[in-house]
Amino acid sequence: MSKRVAIVGAGPSGLAQLRAFQSAAQKGAEIPEIVCFETQDDWGGLWNYTWRTGLDEYGEPVHCSMYRYLWSNGPKEGLEFADYTFEEHFGKPIASYPPRSVLFDYIEGRVKKADVRKWIRFRTPVRRVSYDEGSGMFTVTVHDLVNDNEYSEDFDHVVVASGHFSTPNVPHFEGFSTFNGRVLHAHDFRDALEFKDKDILIIGTSYSAEDIGSQCWKYGCKSVTVSHRTAPMGYKWPDNWKEVPLLQKVERNTCTFKDGSTADVDAIILCTGYLHHFPFMQESLKLRTANRLATADLYKGVVFVDNPKLFYLGMQDQWFTFNMFDAQAWYVRDIIMDKIAVPDRDARAADVVERVAAEDGLEDDYGCIRYQGDYVRELIADTDYPSFDIDGANEAFFQWKKHKKQDIMTFRNNGYRSVMTGTMAPAHHTPWKDAMDDSLESYLETPGEAAQ
Amino acid sequence: MSKRVAIVGAGPSGLAQLRAFQSAAQKGAEIPEIVCFETQDDWGGLWNYTWRTGLDEYGEPVHCSMYRYLWSNGPKEGLEFADYTFEEHFGKPIASYPPRSVLFDYIEGRVKKADVRKWIRFRTPVRRVSYDEGSGMFTVTVHDLVNDNEYSEDFDHVVVASGHFSTPNVPHFEGFSTFNGRVLHAHDFRDALEFKDKDILIIGTSYSAEDIGSQCWKYGCKSVTVSHRTAPMGYKWPDNWKEVPLLQKVERNTCTFKDGSTADVDAIILCTGYLHHFPFMQESLKLRTANRLATADLYKGVVFVDNPKLFYLGMQDQWFTFNMFDAQAWYVRDIIMDKIAVPDRDARAADVVERVAAEDGLEDDYGCIRYQGDYVRELIADTDYPSFDIDGANEAFFQWKKHKKQDIMTFRNNGYRSVMTGTMAPAHHTPWKDAMDDSLESYLETPGEAAQ
Repeated sequence: MSKRVAIVGAGPSGLAQLRAFQSAAQKGAEIPEIVCFETQDDWGGLWNYTWRTGLDEYGEPVHCSMYRYLWSNGPKEGLEFADYTFEEHFGKPIASYPPRSVLFDYIEGRVKKADVRKWIRFRTPVRRVSYDEGSGMFTVTVHDLVNDNEYSEDFDHVVVASGHFSTPNVPHFEGFSTFNGRVLHAHDFRDALEFKDKDILIIGTSYSAEDIGSQCWKYGCKSVTVSHRTAPMGYKWPDNWKEVPLLQKVERNTCTFKDGSTADVDAIILCTGYLHHFPFMQESLKLRTANRLATADLYKGVVFVDNPKLFYLGMQDQWFTFNMFDAQAWYVRDIIMDKIAVPDRDARAADVVERVAAEDGLEDDYGCIRYQGDYVRELIADTDYPSFDIDGANEAFFQWKKHKKQDIMTFRNNGYRSVMTGTMAPAHHTPWKDAMDDSLESYLETPGEAAQ
Repeated sequence: MSKRVAIVGAGPSGLAQLRAFQSAAQKGAEIPEIVCFETQDDWGGLWNYTWRTGLDEYGEPVHCSMYRYLWSNGPKEGLEFADYTFEEHFGKPIASYPPRSVLFDYIEGRVKKADVRKWIRFRTPVRRVSYDEGSGMFTVTVHDLVNDNEYSEDFDHVVVASGHFSTPNVPHFEGFSTFNGRVLHAHDFRDALEFKDKDILIIGTSYSAEDIGSQCWKYGCKSVTVSHRTAPMGYKWPDNWKEVPLLQKVERNTCTFKDGSTADVDAIILCTGYLHHFPFMQESLKLRTANRLATADLYKGVVFVDNPKLFYLGMQDQWFTFNMFDAQAWYVRDIIMDKIAVPDRDARAADVVERVAAEDGLEDDYGCIRYQGDYVRELIADTDYPSFDIDGANEAFFQWKKHKKQDIMTFRNNGYRSVMTGTMAPAHHTPWKDAMDDSLESYLETPGEAAQ
């Protein structure tokens, strides 16, 4: 096979694509030549932590949006790889909400075992991708940062796996220019201790707002005020929290909200989401979609409707993550390897319309979880990715939502059953709110071992 | 004249280029078609303040490196436009070290009068510039952010005026990943009140270090520690300052320096300079130079040696600024309008070698100032830019250096004589360290007026 495939990004989605091809090769198939371009100096995407914010040492936008002390905000039983379980990696069952370093180690374990690092060109951001109708090939122009050299290569297929939680959506509010403190987006949040003893204002009500607020609370901020556009999150917050309507203006340190109430704060953290951002893609190849379960312009959620040689992985809003990326990557692999046929443009476009309508008909988060579970099941059915108990994974998500509703500051103390191994997760040795050490070593300690 | 000229950036250098062409047109010359591409939503370059840091609302790197309460760190008598004086703009003499808003107003006044805003396409970053040997034309591809549309146009000449104080140089030090506070580059510094009552560590000894440290001191930080690689700045600092050798490592909040001394700090500000960064330029057109007076690869400091249809403005390390950009812009204009001839490649390269050798022979800052003054004089001599008393401007810089040495916290209370109008600058109504209000209105008040 003389095909060449470019993969943009070596985060969870890009690594899933590498593993999908390696898995086929391992089973004896002839696979295309794979080249994966990665901006960072290591794999793992968002899970590759850096203290840097803004621009990195080469002037490139920092990809990482994660922060210190981050623990998974969903149960690991919903994201476990079907071909590489947590128990296989760690050699024992572990608790359900691991910190970032533990999940990074897990992601890395699979791709180390698969020996796919050789396919990745690190420190090589993609500058542009264009398609030539005549040759039917893509030209991918990249910048080798270390050698400061730009070059282009041609490919039969391009798989964009660059993520959509790296380019912050940063709204303006009246008075930000003269606020007497730091205004930052969640993307630039790093160490909660910066906000110890501070009054902080958070704008937004999604995962970043909930988790950064909780984290600042855990590490000793003085108070948390969360401003919402539509509705409060409504969890049972600690005493030094309040939820208020949308920010109207800032005067020095005083914030005024839509109901006329005010709060004096030291810092403002914008938890206002991220942009799907593909400045390196030729206009006609650029995905333009809202952050939703049924993305615009992607047949089966992965094939670009206007050019079926082009794929986007992981561009959905997400309940399922790692194993959904796997389902997508195996599916895309089989299209590229001519095992799965892609229908004509009309049929591709109709598929998108149908998915969008189905999502629009959903009534609540439970429906959304089932919808995405069904999508994962649909893709897996057409490939040799190990099938698993999707209903069981859905159930872990349902339990998780229930536990958050019960107590947002203790939900991470719960455990769930692996749908891959059937093992029940042990309780963690320390409740989340008291576990200040988020290192892998600390997390993996078995109770009683620490004192030895 | 059917030539088309692209100008990259509408900061002080780009605006000088617009004004240079408009000035020729005003005198009756036929000028090329001018298109200036600007990423920001207004002109002024670095002087266009924003509260934003990192990436802006379109996912573009924020250009602004300035911060609140910034006052000019050099006398305005060294940077005055020869064709538009401070007295003409403000209608009266003003003091010598204006805050940012006053200088922005001055820069804007000239280009408003020249009516060149119509030549600028705002919110339009340049994505790439390539040169076609066959046609002898440049193709400039840009992104119209507002309409989310990428397009290309061809030009006879390109003038790169995108600045070199916007892409931070951000070194790593051991322990940054686990420092319990904010680590930021000067590029992301915005409001000194964030650091009130804080112990801060500054790394670096150039203008950013000196000025951000002074500013934090003025606005009430608890202490300033400045870490140097080579030598301390050596000014007479306030009692809560100290200068220490290079940072070796950080453990939680404790910084250890090369002499074994330590300091506990709340924040670390990297005043470690900026990169010449032109990711949008084709490899063969990319300027690669250190930040120095005699840049690499630029004949007469502006003409790209390998392609004399391409120009770079303001890429030097700078004592002279606005009026040097003018001298360069007028010179480039006259090359484009065929009034000044550019010699062959060998002669262009020899010019660079000669300038580099001359700079290398300089002994101190005074020599550097004279050297750059001579350069400005050399360019002006070949165009109709109004000649001015370069020796007088040099003298303002000499006095400034002397006043800084005398007292780094009072040097801005001094005044100098304009070499354009001969007027002596009045003293400002309030010493810099006591003037907390940096607004244009406050700065322009005449003593006695405030109470009326």
